Amino acid sequence: MQKTYLYAPGPTPVPSEALLEMARPIIHHREAEFKPVFESCRRDLQYLFQTSRDVVTLAASGTGAMEASVTNFLKRGDKALFVNGGKFGERWGKILKAYGCEPVEVAVEWGQAVDPAAVAAALDADPAIRAVYVQASETSTAVMHPVKALAAVTGRRPGVILAVDGITGVGVFDLPMDAWGIDILLTGSQKALMLPPGLAFVAWSEKAEEFLKTAGLPRFYFDLKAERKKQLENQTAWTPAVSLVVGLREVLAQIRAETLEGVFARTARLAEATRKAVAALGLELYAPASPSDACTAVKMPAGVDGQALKKALRSRFGVIVAGGQDQAKGKIIRIAHLGHADTFDVVTAIAAVEMALAGLGHPVTLGAGVAAALKVLNG
Amino acid sequence: MQKTYLYAPGPTPVPSEALLEMARPIIHHREAEFKPVFESCRRDLQYLFQTSRDVVTLAASGTGAMEASVTNFLKRGDKALFVNGGKFGERWGKILKAYGCEPVEVAVEWGQAVDPAAVAAALDADPAIRAVYVQASETSTAVMHPVKALAAVTGRRPGVILAVDGITGVGVFDLPMDAWGIDILLTGSQKALMLPPGLAFVAWSEKAEEFLKTAGLPRFYFDLKAERKKQLENQTAWTPAVSLVVGLREVLAQIRAETLEGVFARTARLAEATRKAVAALGLELYAPASPSDACTAVKMPAGVDGQALKKALRSRFGVIVAGGQDQAKGKIIRIAHLGHADTFDVVTAIAAVEMALAGLGHPVTLGAGVAAALKVLNG
Repeated sequence: MQKTYLYAPGPTPVPSEALLEMARPIIHHREAEFKPVFESCRRDLQYLFQTSRDVVTLAASGTGAMEASVTNFLKRGDKALFVNGGKFGERWGKILKAYGCEPVEVAVEWGQAVDPAAVAAALDADPAIRAVYVQASETSTAVMHPVKALAAVTGRRPGVILAVDGITGVGVFDLPMDAWGIDILLTGSQKALMLPPGLAFVAWSEKAEEFLKTAGLPRFYFDLKAERKKQLENQTAWTPAVSLVVGLREVLAQIRAETLEGVFARTARLAEATRKAVAALGLELYAPASPSDACTAVKMPAGVDGQALKKALRSRFGVIVAGGQDQAKGKIIRIAHLGHADTFDVVTAIAAVEMALAGLGHPVTLGAGVAAALKVLNG
Repeated sequence: MQKTYLYAPGPTPVPSEALLEMARPIIHHREAEFKPVFESCRRDLQYLFQTSRDVVTLAASGTGAMEASVTNFLKRGDKALFVNGGKFGERWGKILKAYGCEPVEVAVEWGQAVDPAAVAAALDADPAIRAVYVQASETSTAVMHPVKALAAVTGRRPGVILAVDGITGVGVFDLPMDAWGIDILLTGSQKALMLPPGLAFVAWSEKAEEFLKTAGLPRFYFDLKAERKKQLENQTAWTPAVSLVVGLREVLAQIRAETLEGVFARTARLAEATRKAVAALGLELYAPASPSDACTAVKMPAGVDGQALKKALRSRFGVIVAGGQDQAKGKIIRIAHLGHADTFDVVTAIAAVEMALAGLGHPVTLGAGVAAALKVLNG
C-alpha cells in the first residue's frame, strides 16, 4: 500500500467536503437553488479578493482569465508592459501579441523578482504604455513579485493600469486589491481555492472600468461586461461549471472560517518551514531573495538531476512535486504548500526529499531537514 | 419527502458512477496517470463524433467552442451565413459580429427547421460566403435542423465549410461527421454526455483544415491548432478541467457499452413516446415538422401559462422542465429526454404534466398521456 501526496503547485488537493458537495446530484443553473449558491460565492469572492468590486466567475482555467484581462481593457495597437521572469510572465506577451497589442517586455532573470524602479523607468520612457501585466507569484520560478510597490508605481499614473495574475497569489499571501490599488486581479480554482481546475475569477477597479468602456479588442465568451451584468443577478451569461460552483461555495466557507489572515499565516509558516529545511539539508533556493509562499523551488546540488529526484519521489514514496520548466528543467524541484496543506504535509515532503536524495547517492543527514522544519512548525 | 427529477435540456442528470469518479482525489494533469485517462477520452470522442479526425477538448462551456469554431477558421471581414431560428442560432450572429466577420442571416420562424434550399440560394447569391453556421438541434425551440442536407449543399462548394453546433445533437441522434461531410462539429459536456458543464469539444474536417491555415482572427485561450498539438501527446495547452475529464472517461465508456446506435434508438423512443403522450393529451408540439429528439417543446393550451405550469411541476412534484425563452416565454414548456434518461423518466414527466395541468384547471384525462407513451415504450 502506498498513499499519494500531491505537492505540485496546482491542481492542489481538494478537501473531502468539497469533493462530496460536488458529487451530489447536479442542480440546474437557471433554477432557484443556484442563485443562493452563486450569491454566497460572489460575496465570499469579494472577501477573498479584499475588494468591494464585483468578482466575475468564468468557466475556464486561469489562462482564460488572463486573456480576459487583456481583451476587455485594451485596444488594438495599445502598448502594454509585461514582466517576463518565467513561463507565466512570458504568456502575457503571447496573449498581447495574439490580440494585436504591442507588448513591451521587462525581462527579469529567472529566480529574481522584478525591480519596481525598472517598471517605473519603462513607463517614464514610454508614456504610450497603458497597462502593466505581472504575476503576483511566478509559479515556474517560485518568485513573488512586489505587487504593492508596482501598484504604487501605476497608482501615480492616471493613464496606466496594473493587472495582476494572482493564480498562485490570491489566498496564498496578502494581496488586498482595493487597499493596494490593484486594477485587475485574477485567479483560478485549482490553487489556493482547493478546487479542481475549471473556474477562473476576475475583478477590476474603478480606474480599470474606464479602460473597459473604451476597450476595442474582440471578445465574446470572455466578455466581462456582459458577464458582470448577468452575475449581478446571480446568473451567468453562459452555462456555468455548476458542480465546481457548488464546490466553490464550500471551499470559500472554509476560507472564511479560517479567516484570510489565518490562511496567510498558515501558508507562510509552511513555506518558511520548507525553506529552513532546504537550508538545513545544505541545499539552495532558486528564488532566495523573494520567494513565493505558494511553492518552494529547490536548486539541485551537483550530481543530482531534478527530473530523477522528482521521479524517485513519485515512485518510492507516492510524493508528487513539480520539476523545472524550460531553462530550469532538471535544475530544480518545486514543492507546493498552498491551499489544503498543513504541518504534516511539509514534514512528509521534506522527509521524502531526504530519503530520495540519499537514494540518489547525495549525502544527506536523514532527519536534518525535518528537524529544521519542526522548529518553525512548532512555533 | 419529495425527490427531484431534472428534465431540462442541460445540465442533465449525471450518472452516479461519474459523480463518484469525479469525487476521487484529484490527479495532476502533468503526471503519468492523466495520460491514459485523456487518451481513452480522445479515442471515445472520435467514436462519439463518428470521425477519424482529432476531437479537441476545451475547458469551457459550449459557447466557448462556438467561438472557437469562428475564430479558428475565418478572417476579419469574412462573410458567413448563419441559421437564426432560435436563441442559439442568434448567438452565431453575435459571435461573428464580435470578431469583425460579416454575418449573413437566414432567418427561420421559431419552431421551424431551416430549408436547405434557402441556404443553397443564399450561397449562390453571394459566392463570398465562406462558412455556414447552424445548430443540429436548436435547443430553444426543440427543432432539429437538416444537417445531412446542409452538408450536401456545402459539400458541393469547395470554398464553403459547414459548422454544426451539436450541443444537444451529438450523442442524441445520428450526426456522422465524416460520412456526412460536416466540417466543424462541436458539443458540450452537460447534455447527452451526462456530465456537469465545463467541457466543450470541437473537431474539424480536412476541408476545414485549409481554413484553419489561413485563419486570421485573434485567439489565444481557444487556439485549436495549439490545443490539438498538445492533445496529440495526451496533454492540453492550458490546465484542463481535470475532474470533468475523469468523469468524461466514465460516461464515454457507458456510451461505448450501450453503443451509439443503442443510445440513438433509446433517445428516439423516449422522444417519440413523449410526442405521442402530448398528442394524447390534446396538446400540440411547438416544432411538429422537425422535432429534435433532445427535448420536446409543448405548446400551452389556451388559458395555461407555461411559466405557471413549470412552477407547478417544480413545487408540487419536484419535476424540473424548461420554459420558453424570449418570444416563446410562457407559450411552451420543454421536456428533455437526452442523456441519462430511461422509460420511467418519460412516464414520470408525462404523469406530472397531466396532474399539474389538471391542477391549473385544464381538462385532462389523467393517465391518457402515460398510456400513449407506454404504447411506444413497451415496443
